[in-house]
Amino acid sequence: MRIVGNRFSFFGMVLWFAPLGLAAQTSPVEAVRAYRVAHGPAILKGFAELLSIPNVARDSVGINRNAVYIRDALRELGVQSELLRLPGAPPIVYGELDVPGATRTLGIYVHYDGQPVDSSRWTNAPWAPTLYTRAIEDGGTRRDFPGDGESIDPEWRIYARSAGDDKAPIGALLPVLRAFREAGISPTSNIRFFFDGEEEAGSPRLRQYLETNRDRLDGIDVWLFFDGPVHQSRRPLLTFGVRGVTGMQVTIYGSIRPLHSGHYGNWAPVPGQMLAELLASMKDRDGNVLVEGFYDTVEPLGELERAALAALPDYDDELKRELGLFRTEGSGASLAERLLLPSLTVRGLASANVGALARNIIPATATAALGIRLVKANDPEHMKDLVEAHIRRQGYHIVREDPNREIRLRYPRIAKVTRSGGYAAARTPMNLPIVRQVVRAMRRVAGDDLVVIPTLGGSLPLYLFTDVMAKPALILPIANHDDNQHAADENLRIANLWYGIDLYAALLTMPVDDGAIEPPSSGPRR
Amino acid sequence: MRIVGNRFSFFGMVLWFAPLGLAAQTSPVEAVRAYRVAHGPAILKGFAELLSIPNVARDSVGINRNAVYIRDALRELGVQSELLRLPGAPPIVYGELDVPGATRTLGIYVHYDGQPVDSSRWTNAPWAPTLYTRAIEDGGTRRDFPGDGESIDPEWRIYARSAGDDKAPIGALLPVLRAFREAGISPTSNIRFFFDGEEEAGSPRLRQYLETNRDRLDGIDVWLFFDGPVHQSRRPLLTFGVRGVTGMQVTIYGSIRPLHSGHYGNWAPVPGQMLAELLASMKDRDGNVLVEGFYDTVEPLGELERAALAALPDYDDELKRELGLFRTEGSGASLAERLLLPSLTVRGLASANVGALARNIIPATATAALGIRLVKANDPEHMKDLVEAHIRRQGYHIVREDPNREIRLRYPRIAKVTRSGGYAAARTPMNLPIVRQVVRAMRRVAGDDLVVIPTLGGSLPLYLFTDVMAKPALILPIANHDDNQHAADENLRIANLWYGIDLYAALLTMPVDDGAIEPPSSGPRR
Repeated sequence: MRIVGNRFSFFGMVLWFAPLGLAAQTSPVEAVRAYRVAHGPAILKGFAELLSIPNVARDSVGINRNAVYIRDALRELGVQSELLRLPGAPPIVYGELDVPGATRTLGIYVHYDGQPVDSSRWTNAPWAPTLYTRAIEDGGTRRDFPGDGESIDPEWRIYARSAGDDKAPIGALLPVLRAFREAGISPTSNIRFFFDGEEEAGSPRLRQYLETNRDRLDGIDVWLFFDGPVHQSRRPLLTFGVRGVTGMQVTIYGSIRPLHSGHYGNWAPVPGQMLAELLASMKDRDGNVLVEGFYDTVEPLGELERAALAALPDYDDELKRELGLFRTEGSGASLAERLLLPSLTVRGLASANVGALARNIIPATATAALGIRLVKANDPEHMKDLVEAHIRRQGYHIVREDPNREIRLRYPRIAKVTRSGGYAAARTPMNLPIVRQVVRAMRRVAGDDLVVIPTLGGSLPLYLFTDVMAKPALILPIANHDDNQHAADENLRIANLWYGIDLYAALLTMPVDDGAIEPPSSGPRR
Repeated sequence: MRIVGNRFSFFGMVLWFAPLGLAAQTSPVEAVRAYRVAHGPAILKGFAELLSIPNVARDSVGINRNAVYIRDALRELGVQSELLRLPGAPPIVYGELDVPGATRTLGIYVHYDGQPVDSSRWTNAPWAPTLYTRAIEDGGTRRDFPGDGESIDPEWRIYARSAGDDKAPIGALLPVLRAFREAGISPTSNIRFFFDGEEEAGSPRLRQYLETNRDRLDGIDVWLFFDGPVHQSRRPLLTFGVRGVTGMQVTIYGSIRPLHSGHYGNWAPVPGQMLAELLASMKDRDGNVLVEGFYDTVEPLGELERAALAALPDYDDELKRELGLFRTEGSGASLAERLLLPSLTVRGLASANVGALARNIIPATATAALGIRLVKANDPEHMKDLVEAHIRRQGYHIVREDPNREIRLRYPRIAKVTRSGGYAAARTPMNLPIVRQVVRAMRRVAGDDLVVIPTLGGSLPLYLFTDVMAKPALILPIANHDDNQHAADENLRIANLWYGIDLYAALLTMPVDDGAIEPPSSGPRR
């Protein structure tokens, strides 16, 4: 199915089979869907309640309210839950659900914190969840939350910080657990819930949390992530990895003070011009990075990954129309292919002012914020070293602090480089038995519409799970791609919340192994 | 002399000769200096009074207070003065001083408005004139204005908006007229005072003011301007022209909305990168403009101009030390030479944010504010046409408004170009008799230290005087080069105010013509 509102089509829905002996005439997915249809307004109301609690990581009061809310909701549904704490850090909401006879343990990672907000850019207050008949930019109008028994249009959207990223999986999970209890459905795996409270702040204590609680978490067979958007075509998505992320800021120096552009223009060096030349030297006009060695450590794809890539739907043209793009970087290579390479992006530029505030000066400095995305086997420090070496090859002396006059007089070109932290990419191999089980469960919901891609373009500290904890990790996003993640007017399309409910119902009740081999790749191209 | 505080040295001071029959044992310059020494504290107090009146062109109340103040001060000193008005424009303070028997008329142009201020960047309030023992950045400390009879250190600085640009010439002129009256000195020329009230706003009505008052102004033999800084060596400066000024703003478009740099980085075009490539294509690494035809219309220098250039003091190395510059644009050509070419300067850059506000996005746009300085014979519109043609040659489609989706989908590269107004350069020929007279008068004050350069790097609408009014125009700056003109903490060094007083004394009493030929060039190099 595409997650297209009213037009659900369950090609893949086959007879459900219950190895743990549940007595049921309908499949758990169908039972949960019946519960959802009957309780839609209450589900939305519960989700809105969660969304109304401010959740910026550095707001410890709001963060704790979220954590307690989620812990208590899990407890009420029979999950043994508690808050794991490290001093000065948002708590982890941790929960255990053990199922008699289960031979498999799923780890469910969600983060309950959200990006900081610039309220002035929001149509409504970020933590006052608001319902619209469709996307605001598509002419959606505000409406009340539905009353009991009122029907719900899956094209509605709920606007609030974290509606998509990353409270949507919580908004889907809790009703599923409630439906299970009501319908007498038992999961087919043990489950460990692990809800992070500072992902948007870079999860600085995540490694410590994992290592401190290794005994609790070591039995997990596969970690499931629900972060990020589904495919731009609105088709369900499964992905096996993420890119890593790092970056640096580069400041170029001209004169020790801003100069009158008349009295000195044509003689004093112009930092904005020098920065432009430096940035232009880093990439060709087609977007390929010219920094020496930038692509050297990229790990080649395996056979399954290449097959998955070949089976991907060709959605780029539609995406280009949506984004207003005539051309893309990389000589027309597909988005999915381009995400398998490290990237170097000018994410910000600044030198004095433009517009009404522009002055007739030669600014004293010009600064670029550079983002670097990494693919498997790229080391964050090594990649920044390569960019620094490139800057040096352009004739620059690199400093870590603003240079004083003595240093300025010693070098013709000076760049201050401030390196960001960041972390490596991660990718789970596609040929593991547990992967096959998850793919099969997803196909039960998504049918041939499942899109399988080797990696997401975005970043999560997935390497902590795949490399430090040494477990497979998969990402099964729920939110719509046009959810304004990280930005103002973040929203979740109701159809995507419904999809999340279906998805959890299928995942938590998936058979242990049915022996069939299903290569993890997308359904037929069309 | 250098304007070096206590170390005045009047090499050039020769016997003064009074063709209009004034009975005087000392020269007028000496008489005025004696007056200045006796009345220093009162002169500073009067100047501070003028500086305390807010003078941003769009503040019509403050502007009118300035105009009335100056008109009344001139009247009190025997100048027939009035306010010329155009609807909605700051008035011109116009004054006439006719001298019986004078055969020559000097036009004195000063502007009494100042640049807008960002008060938060000032050490003291911009219109609360404050005295310091030297420049604040050199460790100067605040002190009271001196009382009567107290001695004055010429290294003191008075801080206030327009202290240097361009009330300094008013602060010097009024005491000279007062000293003349007290010592019974009569000018040797008729004088027309013309004080502009919106120069810092681009003098949009100056042409109309000049044309409307052509009958009053047509008898002027030479226009004298006192704007801008003296030479960086603190030596007195005479210059024959200014560069013209224009500019444009260029915005490059990526996707229709900012994109997640992970999900789309390496595929979606990056506006900051495209802008960098475009800017880098406009100049070589040595600062030479690569825009086709950019240097084609430059008018070659005449013999006198080349001689003046050759005689210029070699001050660049000292300037580079002061500004913290290892290298300059133009393969080591001197500043004075480089000012004789048009320039193209990145005066501002912006794309999303840098620093703490930088986000992991691909910004939707990147913008550069470009300043263009023009030399004689460059037409402002033609020069912008050349830059636009260059942008087109880089594959860009140029728009004037933000492009809609349809336009975005039609062109691979789109640049919005917003053209500024501006005006042409101007340069008065060096070989006119009136020029020789002014040079001789200046040498009486400056001796061999006089620096003569063909053009200032900065801009004034001088072409209105040289081309529209068809008169010679000379610029004899007063203010120190380190006066923070246009910026916060603008200031005037007291030694420069004293220099202005000497200068006016010499100019207003210069002999009609003594027959000697003095080529206008700088004193001996050292």
